[in-house]
Amino acid sequence: MIVTEINRLFGLKYPIFQGGMAWISNGQLAAAVSNAGGLGVISSINEGEEALRREITTCRSLLHNPDFPFAINVMLMSPQAQAAADIAVEMQVPVVITGAGLPTPYMKKWLAAGIKVVPVVPSTGIAKMAARLGACAVIAEGGESGGHVGDLTTMVLTPQVADAVSIPVIAAGGIADGRGVAASLMLGAAGVQCGTCFLTAKECGVHANYKQKIFQAKDIDTIVTGKRLGHPVRSLKNAFSRQFADMEYNTNLSDQEIESFGAGALRRAALEGDVQNGSVMAGQCAAMLHEEKTAQQIIVDMFAQAEHVLACAGKFLTEEESHA
Amino acid sequence: MIVTEINRLFGLKYPIFQGGMAWISNGQLAAAVSNAGGLGVISSINEGEEALRREITTCRSLLHNPDFPFAINVMLMSPQAQAAADIAVEMQVPVVITGAGLPTPYMKKWLAAGIKVVPVVPSTGIAKMAARLGACAVIAEGGESGGHVGDLTTMVLTPQVADAVSIPVIAAGGIADGRGVAASLMLGAAGVQCGTCFLTAKECGVHANYKQKIFQAKDIDTIVTGKRLGHPVRSLKNAFSRQFADMEYNTNLSDQEIESFGAGALRRAALEGDVQNGSVMAGQCAAMLHEEKTAQQIIVDMFAQAEHVLACAGKFLTEEESHA
Repeated sequence: MIVTEINRLFGLKYPIFQGGMAWISNGQLAAAVSNAGGLGVISSINEGEEALRREITTCRSLLHNPDFPFAINVMLMSPQAQAAADIAVEMQVPVVITGAGLPTPYMKKWLAAGIKVVPVVPSTGIAKMAARLGACAVIAEGGESGGHVGDLTTMVLTPQVADAVSIPVIAAGGIADGRGVAASLMLGAAGVQCGTCFLTAKECGVHANYKQKIFQAKDIDTIVTGKRLGHPVRSLKNAFSRQFADMEYNTNLSDQEIESFGAGALRRAALEGDVQNGSVMAGQCAAMLHEEKTAQQIIVDMFAQAEHVLACAGKFLTEEESHA
Repeated sequence: MIVTEINRLFGLKYPIFQGGMAWISNGQLAAAVSNAGGLGVISSINEGEEALRREITTCRSLLHNPDFPFAINVMLMSPQAQAAADIAVEMQVPVVITGAGLPTPYMKKWLAAGIKVVPVVPSTGIAKMAARLGACAVIAEGGESGGHVGDLTTMVLTPQVADAVSIPVIAAGGIADGRGVAASLMLGAAGVQCGTCFLTAKECGVHANYKQKIFQAKDIDTIVTGKRLGHPVRSLKNAFSRQFADMEYNTNLSDQEIESFGAGALRRAALEGDVQNGSVMAGQCAAMLHEEKTAQQIIVDMFAQAEHVLACAGKFLTEEESHA
């Protein structure tokens, strides 16, 4: 078994969080991940407040043990953030993951309610501020991840955040197998967060076309769009993302015209299965995923490989000098 | 000591290559790295053919042992590529690193001359083609690196290239300390290539202003420009790179106008020390570098930390179950 501060802090069998994916991460997926020994995460970006309450209730009803932790993800830039923040307290959600900024306005209330808060951070500056606010851990998310992305990659962000804060760091972005888990631990992380992997889980209700598109992806098949608008997003290359990219370089188009073109695109792909004209958000590790597995099998396979890789770390070490 | 196939294949004390940096990596720097037990690399992008011959001669004259290997870097898109390719054979350079494409036209000649060829690859497709051409290893370079960059990051590119080819893989991009070395080995690499680290070496002749700019860099201080032109470049944020980025989104400007604006910018920063109006190419790991050290000290410190981190890998492994 791989045991770190993250297992102890959150009561997990495996130090792995599921990424909170808008319109995709629901109570069923979160419960599957939590039942498998990781931390399942419900996205609060969905059909609204009632949907969030329903998914939390669903997750709880599916947990094999009421003590298994789970989380909701609060996307701070979203108009739904305040409502989601309140629901976390009202429904006694054990963990809140925050994204896209700092959860300053909500921290006091959450901490008073005994909620563990884990912000996703794209830089050392944001990580330090999160730690000062009372976060119990941070997720250092590299720009190879899917959906909304930062600039720094997992390889450079993880060690820098580990140096910048004294709370545990969870690495995210580009982690799809046990090698990524082992590498993250070497970089100074105490755990990992995986989004794209769990997107393809059997218990994930995303449209079957979306999963197929991920299984067919090659290494070079993702693209980042939206930089011009200030919120870059990584998705698989398709008619939608190519046209979006073209539009960004067209200065005859206003930012608003481009925003309008993108509106509803994730929902179109994730719920309706239109993987040509919708946004198929996924990380660069999409090409490393080949088949649908249960959340449990994803985690078991990943950590078996990580244990093997870590156990073999000594093979590189020798007392001999090798220079000719 | 850390010993991998890369030590054995190239006769190195440490499995580390220095990145070949245009206008910067000369014979003095290459010799310092090779004398320290890594592989020093001379860039063939400089003042021309005679300069390349001179730098190779300088490197040889500075080597503590004539058997220590060194390399030249041939940038395949450069008009100087053919001349550099011929000089490698004529001067019996032991190793050639290639960048920006596949070295198809030169392979036969190089292999016949006993030269070891190591292409830098940005994807699994190019890696497989390089292996078929007779490369003895490949450098999987993630887009967090400095200078000309690909899309895939070190975290996702390294394991995929390791799966795609049977020759050894060297990880590059974002590696600035022993944690990065250890992580690279976990990802399936047998060695690392570092550019930005060696840019700051005492033996590196780049302008002092350039080194200072790197030492002052924060984590979020690099930017990628040139995507519109098809050859993205990572450099530190300054007046030059900000203006370049603005120009890219201006469709009233032709690609040629933008190319002209960029011409000579690296030389201006590296040789003349104009770090505001020149291009200060550097990787995202710039923020992890704080002081000038000799090439030897850079390598010794990096590998001491890597050994320590690898030796501690077992601390994460336990027989106990941790689930509550």
